[in-house]
Amino acid sequence: MSYERSNIRKLAAYVPGEQPKVSKLIKLNTNENPYPPVPAVMKAIADVQGDHLRRYPSPTAQGFREAAARVHHVEPEQVIATNGSDELLRLVMTVYCEPSGMRTNQPGGIGVTNPTYSLYSVLADIQDTPEIVVDLDDDYGMPSDLSDRWNAAGCKLGFIVNPHAPSGRFYELHEIRKVAEKFDGVLIVDEAYVDFAEHDALELVRQQPDGLGLENVLVTRTLSKGYSLAGLRFGYGIGSHKIIAALDKARDSYNTDILSQAAATTAIEARDAVAESWEKVILERDRMRDELEKRGYKVFPSAANFLLTVPPKGRVGAAKIYQSLADKGIYVRYFTHDNMCDKLRITVGTPEQNDALYNALDQIK
Amino acid sequence: MSYERSNIRKLAAYVPGEQPKVSKLIKLNTNENPYPPVPAVMKAIADVQGDHLRRYPSPTAQGFREAAARVHHVEPEQVIATNGSDELLRLVMTVYCEPSGMRTNQPGGIGVTNPTYSLYSVLADIQDTPEIVVDLDDDYGMPSDLSDRWNAAGCKLGFIVNPHAPSGRFYELHEIRKVAEKFDGVLIVDEAYVDFAEHDALELVRQQPDGLGLENVLVTRTLSKGYSLAGLRFGYGIGSHKIIAALDKARDSYNTDILSQAAATTAIEARDAVAESWEKVILERDRMRDELEKRGYKVFPSAANFLLTVPPKGRVGAAKIYQSLADKGIYVRYFTHDNMCDKLRITVGTPEQNDALYNALDQIK
Repeated sequence: MSYERSNIRKLAAYVPGEQPKVSKLIKLNTNENPYPPVPAVMKAIADVQGDHLRRYPSPTAQGFREAAARVHHVEPEQVIATNGSDELLRLVMTVYCEPSGMRTNQPGGIGVTNPTYSLYSVLADIQDTPEIVVDLDDDYGMPSDLSDRWNAAGCKLGFIVNPHAPSGRFYELHEIRKVAEKFDGVLIVDEAYVDFAEHDALELVRQQPDGLGLENVLVTRTLSKGYSLAGLRFGYGIGSHKIIAALDKARDSYNTDILSQAAATTAIEARDAVAESWEKVILERDRMRDELEKRGYKVFPSAANFLLTVPPKGRVGAAKIYQSLADKGIYVRYFTHDNMCDKLRITVGTPEQNDALYNALDQIK
Repeated sequence: MSYERSNIRKLAAYVPGEQPKVSKLIKLNTNENPYPPVPAVMKAIADVQGDHLRRYPSPTAQGFREAAARVHHVEPEQVIATNGSDELLRLVMTVYCEPSGMRTNQPGGIGVTNPTYSLYSVLADIQDTPEIVVDLDDDYGMPSDLSDRWNAAGCKLGFIVNPHAPSGRFYELHEIRKVAEKFDGVLIVDEAYVDFAEHDALELVRQQPDGLGLENVLVTRTLSKGYSLAGLRFGYGIGSHKIIAALDKARDSYNTDILSQAAATTAIEARDAVAESWEKVILERDRMRDELEKRGYKVFPSAANFLLTVPPKGRVGAAKIYQSLADKGIYVRYFTHDNMCDKLRITVGTPEQNDALYNALDQIK
């Protein structure tokens, strides 16, 4: 006998990138920053005393909210802290999407693009809410009728990843603003990789001199990538007071712990020091593009810390290259979705890791 | 304009116990262990390196699962680790309860007792699932038809807290077994306070020599109380393989962080050392009972680290005592639910904290 809801019984769970245990491996598959967290973060963790651990933490991570508000020039009430951005992405579905069954003719669901971050679809299945998929252009640009199509299906949430995953493409602010202004629901701008790009979309949610920011935009962030803190599980959202207040009611009561609150607050305050690693990654991203193109690979434009690439035609295919690299202890990401076939997504590593990748590619015949 | 679902819009959020910031206060209101975590836990946190934080943690907290399985004599596949037991309690609703609206004539909801831990009701509202409430006896015993009444309403989940909150009453194993065997859904046995009691309900879920444990029981635990780690946000569940596999599919992909995994694994392995603090709390609980009874208070039997008590009749009422104590910097818990009126719940503190409480009570006229 099964006790669970039928949508859960049928659920195909999200498959995270592999986390091989052998420590000599070169992991270019899950988009971590290759440099360690800044020393101030380690000190903040070490400074947490037993008596702090004994007591409940701030339910809202108030210290972090205030620090993030200062760094991003918004108000603390526009910030929500979560257990990774995973929690935040799940929470928006809980708060905005109707669990009406996954029939796409029902309103209340989510609008996504194809391709996009694969977790959204899994979370929609868990919420048992419909998912409307709109194909991107061949170069991963957004079609001009994206909002219209989401609106026509009654979507309550729309998801844009910027820089886009898994392509790395960067959407300009005016493109996102247009989607948000035309969309009837709440637009999630997932900026997991924005630390490696030149701009962000916070202008859309900031209080402007002439009034409020857009009421229906939530920008989501994570410390997993840019801040080298994937192990910490800390994400946050920045949006209108109204969105944050609604999310705040439905999150777990004490959703972030005292160690991660201390580390995250210090990390975001040390943003300028952390940014030195972003500069190094960006330099290596440019070099990786050159090295791959030199070898005949097509490389899509990327403002993130990874490159999406297509091996030279008529030679060894992406699946085989993925496996050959893995055999040599170098992990990259290979997707099996229809429209991602024969492509590899490679995280930008340290110069040494990247050199090892180029050498390994040269050995694959 | 509001974007959120109507059940969320109407939601009255869970109100956690007060966490006053003044450090000289004596906090006897949220049931933390008054003693700090054991030194081994602090060392485990200090041993986490930057390179660990940089990478994603084990998605399942595998090291913890294995340690908990050894300590509790179950299999690792019978354990799920969560971001506090809060996450686990929310997750069971997601997995088992139908979001059919909160109309109590619809099946698929939760069965609770009255009184019980107030979070269950909030989580049911978030899931938009019906809640069936069955009154406990005057001495907080379970009525013999508890399962029948939950079954009649089509409940998918039933919740028992043992030791019971907010009374502290301990239910014997045979009582819980009877509820589980008669109940058609999954029975959650919330053992948040079990470290201060003499027995637990794990026998119900353990593989027996003659076969499996009960398939429909999930025991939930937290490190917040007994292990002095409320700040860490770490909970776990122990149940049948089937229940754990279903929950595992629907949890956030990386729901516990590497620092809390390290600390929690060490804490549970150091159970014998931690238990010394439980012994001290139990001694003080007995002394607190004597001191309160000496002052004319009625004190309910308790196997937890708190006492539920009724002030002497015809004198100052609970609300006034609560406020007078707060004015003196001593926080206890005062409930305003109907059937909890004129009662105080007092966490057992250190001998010094408890002495301060008795002195303060003597000054209230």
